[in-house]
Amino acid sequence: MMEHTVRAFEDDITRLRGLIAEMGGLSEVSVQEALDAMVNGNEQLAEQVIERDKRIDALEMEVDRLAVRIIALRAPMADDLREVIAALKIAGVVERIGDYAKNIAKRVGKIEGRRHFEPLTLLPAMGDIATQMVHDVLTAYAARDPVLARKVIATDKKVDAFYDSIFRNLVTHMVENPATISSAAQLLFVARNIERVGDHATNVAEMVHFAATGNYPPEEDQKD
Amino acid sequence: MMEHTVRAFEDDITRLRGLIAEMGGLSEVSVQEALDAMVNGNEQLAEQVIERDKRIDALEMEVDRLAVRIIALRAPMADDLREVIAALKIAGVVERIGDYAKNIAKRVGKIEGRRHFEPLTLLPAMGDIATQMVHDVLTAYAARDPVLARKVIATDKKVDAFYDSIFRNLVTHMVENPATISSAAQLLFVARNIERVGDHATNVAEMVHFAATGNYPPEEDQKD
Repeated sequence: MMEHTVRAFEDDITRLRGLIAEMGGLSEVSVQEALDAMVNGNEQLAEQVIERDKRIDALEMEVDRLAVRIIALRAPMADDLREVIAALKIAGVVERIGDYAKNIAKRVGKIEGRRHFEPLTLLPAMGDIATQMVHDVLTAYAARDPVLARKVIATDKKVDAFYDSIFRNLVTHMVENPATISSAAQLLFVARNIERVGDHATNVAEMVHFAATGNYPPEEDQKD
Repeated sequence: MMEHTVRAFEDDITRLRGLIAEMGGLSEVSVQEALDAMVNGNEQLAEQVIERDKRIDALEMEVDRLAVRIIALRAPMADDLREVIAALKIAGVVERIGDYAKNIAKRVGKIEGRRHFEPLTLLPAMGDIATQMVHDVLTAYAARDPVLARKVIATDKKVDAFYDSIFRNLVTHMVENPATISSAAQLLFVARNIERVGDHATNVAEMVHFAATGNYPPEEDQKD
């Protein structure tokens, strides 16, 4: 490429990365706020999370359009093309993390007897680990840091263990309190959504590792 | 493009579409077999579904590689580029449908007292509608048929209604049979997975509509 073309390509890539960082930040906040709304029964906050998802979706479409424009105008080769395709894929995964937050927010109004619902109090700690994974994987993406990406992948085991424990706790709670089964079923889905957030952060981490090193992380790190 | 380049591009696109058709066929069979295994407690069939998912994942990577090669070598513009990007995205969604099938298959061993578990018998009918949607949306993709794509989008309401009814049925079953709560919780996730298969078929239908007409389907058709 000629020098001004290289410069223009780099400007475009910077913009693409900026859009993904913005999407990531919004998704991270949404997961936290959705769980906050869930624990406190704050339907107004839940509404805010649901609204924000539209912005995240719009950003994904902006990433798609910009990526297509970069490919069409700059005709990047090899590593540069791999970077643009990775951005397209990462934007798709981050958008799904936003969807999980929205999904949690939509269940806020469906929980009854929140005050005495012990399993509710387990979710925020699980959510903290998953949102930290989202935060770290976006840092790893921005810094092209494969070591941090592998740390994110390793953390997913904690989220999975939390999920198993919450699943068992909720089933026990259902058996002992049949009147709460409908609410507890909603919380099963919430726990599952958080577990999926961790899975998606792991997927992004694998892509970041690949984009940074040209290799996927070693088998023992990878998600099944 | 020069004539031989046009020809080479069309050959590549045909290959890309063939790979997606293959992925779609495998995913459709996997959803059906996973539900069959679930209803009959057939763990061997479940294992087969889990194994097949690796093939679906490998096909997605083949689509990605081929798409990148097409973009790099043929430098398609406008509509042609939109077609390649659409293929990348559709492959990603079809891969996720395969994941839902695998997810259902993994729960086969976790259901106890299958013989007297009435809610189990509701799942195959729901699964039939969802797999038909997957089948139809791939036909719509192959034929670039926006009318069939809109039919798929409309069908998703049926899957959602089925899901709501199964959810209520399972909660009632849990209340009346506390001993089955753990198994019923697994079935909640199975129903949810089928509902997500319908959602993803709808997403693909929106992309097919867009690729065929340059517009997304009218608002009233679209998934929230």
